[in-house]
Amino acid sequence: MKKAIFEEAGKMGVVESPVPVIENDDDVIIKVVRACVCGSDLWAYSAGDAKEAHSENSGHEALGIVEAVGPAINTVKKGDFVIVPFTHGCGHCPACLAGFDGVCQAHSNNFSMGFQAQYLKFAYGDWALVKVPGQPSDYSEGMLKSLLTLSDVMATGYHAAVTARVSKGDKVVVVGDGAVGQCAVIAAKMLGAAQIIIMSRHEDRQQMALEAGATAFVAERGQEGIDKVLELTGGSGADAVLECVGAQAATEQAFGVVRPGGRIGRVGLPHGEKMAPTATFYRNITLAGGPASVTTYDKKVLLKAVLDGEINPGKVFTHSYKLDQINQAYQDMAARKAIKSYIVFDD
Amino acid sequence: MKKAIFEEAGKMGVVESPVPVIENDDDVIIKVVRACVCGSDLWAYSAGDAKEAHSENSGHEALGIVEAVGPAINTVKKGDFVIVPFTHGCGHCPACLAGFDGVCQAHSNNFSMGFQAQYLKFAYGDWALVKVPGQPSDYSEGMLKSLLTLSDVMATGYHAAVTARVSKGDKVVVVGDGAVGQCAVIAAKMLGAAQIIIMSRHEDRQQMALEAGATAFVAERGQEGIDKVLELTGGSGADAVLECVGAQAATEQAFGVVRPGGRIGRVGLPHGEKMAPTATFYRNITLAGGPASVTTYDKKVLLKAVLDGEINPGKVFTHSYKLDQINQAYQDMAARKAIKSYIVFDD
Repeated sequence: MKKAIFEEAGKMGVVESPVPVIENDDDVIIKVVRACVCGSDLWAYSAGDAKEAHSENSGHEALGIVEAVGPAINTVKKGDFVIVPFTHGCGHCPACLAGFDGVCQAHSNNFSMGFQAQYLKFAYGDWALVKVPGQPSDYSEGMLKSLLTLSDVMATGYHAAVTARVSKGDKVVVVGDGAVGQCAVIAAKMLGAAQIIIMSRHEDRQQMALEAGATAFVAERGQEGIDKVLELTGGSGADAVLECVGAQAATEQAFGVVRPGGRIGRVGLPHGEKMAPTATFYRNITLAGGPASVTTYDKKVLLKAVLDGEINPGKVFTHSYKLDQINQAYQDMAARKAIKSYIVFDD
Repeated sequence: MKKAIFEEAGKMGVVESPVPVIENDDDVIIKVVRACVCGSDLWAYSAGDAKEAHSENSGHEALGIVEAVGPAINTVKKGDFVIVPFTHGCGHCPACLAGFDGVCQAHSNNFSMGFQAQYLKFAYGDWALVKVPGQPSDYSEGMLKSLLTLSDVMATGYHAAVTARVSKGDKVVVVGDGAVGQCAVIAAKMLGAAQIIIMSRHEDRQQMALEAGATAFVAERGQEGIDKVLELTGGSGADAVLECVGAQAATEQAFGVVRPGGRIGRVGLPHGEKMAPTATFYRNITLAGGPASVTTYDKKVLLKAVLDGEINPGKVFTHSYKLDQINQAYQDMAARKAIKSYIVFDD
């Protein structure tokens, strides 16, 4: 089979590789139908991070067809159409039962990688996979795009809103206008926010957010951006801030616009400076968030919302590629030409 | 009048001072009936902190009788018996309306000091003071002690529990066995916790906590203490941790015992190292807390609970003093002889 690899900083490639096989009783082998590139994949691609040359791709979002299952798998079977999450909740530990399957306590590595390939192996697969009725051919490309967001970004945007406890009537600020930020706007609207302000400097992304339910955008950054949000919220600041970037400037923006007693839901991988021990204290800020509860949200809320056409998060996929074009898919996203890059596999 | 002053690190004194007068329209002058020493007062007393010699006492908890009111005061009048909070919420700004009057947005300094004196001036006094029915002489000394905890420690313990979102059936850990920790145990029980574990090495404090609703105590510290909590919670860790100290070791204890997806409510003044930006992220920890919503909690829940005898937080006052004995009152608390020192004023 073909799979993408990280060749070096700024360069992805495609290599031939053996199709993965069942090794553990709860492994599931899946033929990939659609995959994509995540903002978090770009940390390594753009900067190299500590990633080794010629190493596994970090892709962790896919739709696929179950090809084979280990003997401990009871919930999916060969031929099932599934959403493949970036996490592997067991569904039974205290964290999963509390709705935090992104930080499942049953095994040490809860995260996926290697999904930018024709086949993938999904470990701890008995509960985490999300079955979709029918087969991919039953759905429009637009619907497939929305289903694919349920493997990560839509669930992640929803997690920002849930952990920031967005509720009816809230004034919400979304920091970040990428795919997760756009999904956070959708989530804030689903949870009843009265005002949704997105921090965005790009006209196409401002427009997309407004169509999804944002009530305003703020293009200014730093103190100017904070002042603008205060003005838009009648001087009070935001009840809830959904921080969807993780960079230092985004964290500062989040702390700057939240009102005393407000909540920050963070879902961007934190890449910033150390925080003062009092960072949250003297303003009674609640800081929450982390890896999303993908399976929980999909099964409870999001799959139905997508299938009913209530939400259309697939719009974040602005550009499509074949697997052979994987480097272009990364490059266009890193250059902010694509909001999110979509990978279509041959049948 | 007499008032306590901070003479130097390790030494409090009493001096003669003019009775304060109304300066702003919303000032209230109060004759102090009972006051006390707070754990936070000890930071300066023990270490000196950055506090100047011969400076104002930092006392901020009192019961008293209204002596005079400014022209903008409509809610209390001369002769009223009041609980005097350590905060000055306006009751009308977005933070106060959201239940966070400890971080009121209406004025820049929301904190009290100077209450270890025969008279005090309470600024921004139109909403924050809490009226108690009748007069001090209508109540037993035990009831007066419980009423005095409503100026800070009982409300602060309750804030830890509220911001950690303790709810029915939760497994709760309380870090700190001082007055606030003891009050946090009471609060966790009020909010329906099923299991309440207090970290405590002192037999008298363990006993007090068990009487107030704790189901177990853990005397071990560091990793040993964490392991013990995991054992007591069936391996899962705590749903909610109420951090009532603020020191670095207490923060580490809190992060160590909380389960993935759990909540930490902090009310101890943070005196620790800087936190990694990912400190909360990879385990989906919610970090909340700050200065308590004293007036909100007193008016909504706590005053009634005390007057009905449902809770008895006054037990934290283990030792009583006259104002002239203020240095001994601090010393005994710093030496952990007294859990909390109570100051009785002459009529």
